Amino acid sequence: MRAFTGISELLTMAGQEASPEERLGLVRDAAVVVEHGRVRWSGARAACPLPLGEIETIDLGQRVVLPGLVDCHTHLVFAGDRAADFEARCRGESYQAIAQRGGGIATTVASTRQASREALTALARPRLVALLGAGVTTVEIKSGYGLSLESELAQLEVAATLAREGPQAIVPTLLLHIVPPEYRERRDDWVRLVVERLIPEVAARKLASAVDVYCDVGAFSADESARILAAGRAHGLALKAHVEQLSATGFAVRAAELGARSLEHLEHADAAAVAAMARAGTVAVLLPTASLFLGDARRPPVAALREAGVAMAVATDLNPGSSPTFDPWLAATLACTWYGLTPAEALLGMTAVAARALDLGDGRGTLAPGAPADLAVARVPTWQALLYGLGHRPIAETWIAGLRVAA
Amino acid sequence: MRAFTGISELLTMAGQEASPEERLGLVRDAAVVVEHGRVRWSGARAACPLPLGEIETIDLGQRVVLPGLVDCHTHLVFAGDRAADFEARCRGESYQAIAQRGGGIATTVASTRQASREALTALARPRLVALLGAGVTTVEIKSGYGLSLESELAQLEVAATLAREGPQAIVPTLLLHIVPPEYRERRDDWVRLVVERLIPEVAARKLASAVDVYCDVGAFSADESARILAAGRAHGLALKAHVEQLSATGFAVRAAELGARSLEHLEHADAAAVAAMARAGTVAVLLPTASLFLGDARRPPVAALREAGVAMAVATDLNPGSSPTFDPWLAATLACTWYGLTPAEALLGMTAVAARALDLGDGRGTLAPGAPADLAVARVPTWQALLYGLGHRPIAETWIAGLRVAA
Repeated sequence: MRAFTGISELLTMAGQEASPEERLGLVRDAAVVVEHGRVRWSGARAACPLPLGEIETIDLGQRVVLPGLVDCHTHLVFAGDRAADFEARCRGESYQAIAQRGGGIATTVASTRQASREALTALARPRLVALLGAGVTTVEIKSGYGLSLESELAQLEVAATLAREGPQAIVPTLLLHIVPPEYRERRDDWVRLVVERLIPEVAARKLASAVDVYCDVGAFSADESARILAAGRAHGLALKAHVEQLSATGFAVRAAELGARSLEHLEHADAAAVAAMARAGTVAVLLPTASLFLGDARRPPVAALREAGVAMAVATDLNPGSSPTFDPWLAATLACTWYGLTPAEALLGMTAVAARALDLGDGRGTLAPGAPADLAVARVPTWQALLYGLGHRPIAETWIAGLRVAA
Repeated sequence: MRAFTGISELLTMAGQEASPEERLGLVRDAAVVVEHGRVRWSGARAACPLPLGEIETIDLGQRVVLPGLVDCHTHLVFAGDRAADFEARCRGESYQAIAQRGGGIATTVASTRQASREALTALARPRLVALLGAGVTTVEIKSGYGLSLESELAQLEVAATLAREGPQAIVPTLLLHIVPPEYRERRDDWVRLVVERLIPEVAARKLASAVDVYCDVGAFSADESARILAAGRAHGLALKAHVEQLSATGFAVRAAELGARSLEHLEHADAAAVAAMARAGTVAVLLPTASLFLGDARRPPVAALREAGVAMAVATDLNPGSSPTFDPWLAATLACTWYGLTPAEALLGMTAVAARALDLGDGRGTLAPGAPADLAVARVPTWQALLYGLGHRPIAETWIAGLRVAA
């Protein structure tokens, strides 16, 4: 048993009240007592029922402490970069033109397919380290750059290796990203392969806990997406979908009705989508760095989501094409200034709500008793300063299961 | 004399051709020869006319090298922060309501007035260090949080102290930011004081090389702004103005006609403004982090500026209210993805064009012969990767006058 003190402000993310500000669970001059890697008690130091004088105490030096962040939407396993594509796109070359000369996602697919599992693992590690330094202790990782049975499985196996290595908890998701180039003329064969072989194998081998599908122009149609999610559900996987990002497909409603745990992007989501998500208890995963990296002026209907009671998570969307970033704090600040979340909503969205988007029922994303003792320790004077600043890096230390993993 | 080698790609920013990509002056496997703190020669290593084998050589290890950045628009000298305001604004409290309870710029003014010169200097130093780590070797610093004769002079004296201390070159600007609260009922008295006493004293004591005025709703009117700029011109100061940011005042045209060296923000600039700037050779200073921190969806007319041949600079706008950032790279990437600049334009905009916005005629912002030997050394594989990424920090080392000042 050990106790953390020197916490000027603690955000437990476990407040039970109605407003986001109350749900932060702000406690001043706080303590967190940890046993066997989990929180045994958290609250005001003076109110601690345990004898703080008699147990090992770690003084954090008057810092702001919150749960380790949960980055609930990343494409972290890939090879290659897209810097030249980026430069060409900014010069005005169209996405289509870039794709036709073999750029765009095809670059990443080609590099990822060619890379060995070992190479992909080695490329992924420093990305996890960067997130760790930002206080991220739980990371969702999607496949989706393999685009073949074998290569999608390989990406998920790399995620499994990263999970074994630690220190972060990894939550793998099977993503059906686009139709492989080899199947462009016979899309239905690919969907059938996914439904009949890929999803069953992933589920049987427990290589992912969820299936995600990208429904948009240039990716999967609404009908194809529905078949894929239905197959996922039949095999016991949680459901997710990239929807209403670049165009309005209307698939958000169907996905919510299929029981989607979370829906991602949502720049084009309409009132029907919001209502369906509210009915189904679906989490909205907002990805503002992707909007801004693509120069997309559309923003998700945050006021409507809030009004309808849809929980909103914020994630990095870390990927080489549309969101080359390792900074969840930048994503959260932009979620406030650009999408219109409040700082309290954005902080909940990177912790407790993000854990909900991943179906993590172990208290993760909070510092309530029983939760993993994962702490992000920030060098800011007050919690309001956590998201004040563009490109600031507020985290001084990251702890996982009560152990310091990044200084 | 010493030579820098191990430069996989050098951007001299001194290319003489028409396109921004050509003006980057890209040279592969390059060398830069430095003497007495200035560039003596730069170009392809194999073409160097000087005997590289016989002079001290510093191998940079296959890095991308560009001129030290010029941050041509900052409000770097201030006290206090605005984190609580930020949080309140995101919760929906209006700027007016925040201002009425003494928040907003009044917070910064009150803190800045109360702070001693020594305290302001001490607060400014780590901000300069943060910029230095990002490769910024020349920094414009505006006054504008004093709002009294004495306090505006104090801010400029702090800038002079920072200039003496180094290592960065500091370019001070007198900014008339808003009408002081004490003069709200007699604005004209303040404008007269500025015109008759502040500007003459600043010019006589050489405390600033330019005068800048903020013309917008809640700040100075177009007529007041014109009087201020005319006084600046009469006293030999260069002219600048914050214009067309939050509303369309039309003042950009008058400012350009008065001979403004640069105009800043320009989100609401119209065709007449663009044409007047083109005629006058005025530089457009673009500040995308301020737009996004304020959640402002308007963007400056980049295509029209480009078409008209108006040079575009990019800067951080570092300030506690609307752009709390120390990251010129984030500003430049957002200038590309969000405002529509090309990476070449944005890189020129942080170097050679930014130097033009500051009237620096010493080659600064380039690595042409005679320019200060200020180098930003980046850990990226190619120049296209410099701006690829949100929140990346590409700079590994910063050199000023041929000496390493940040690792």
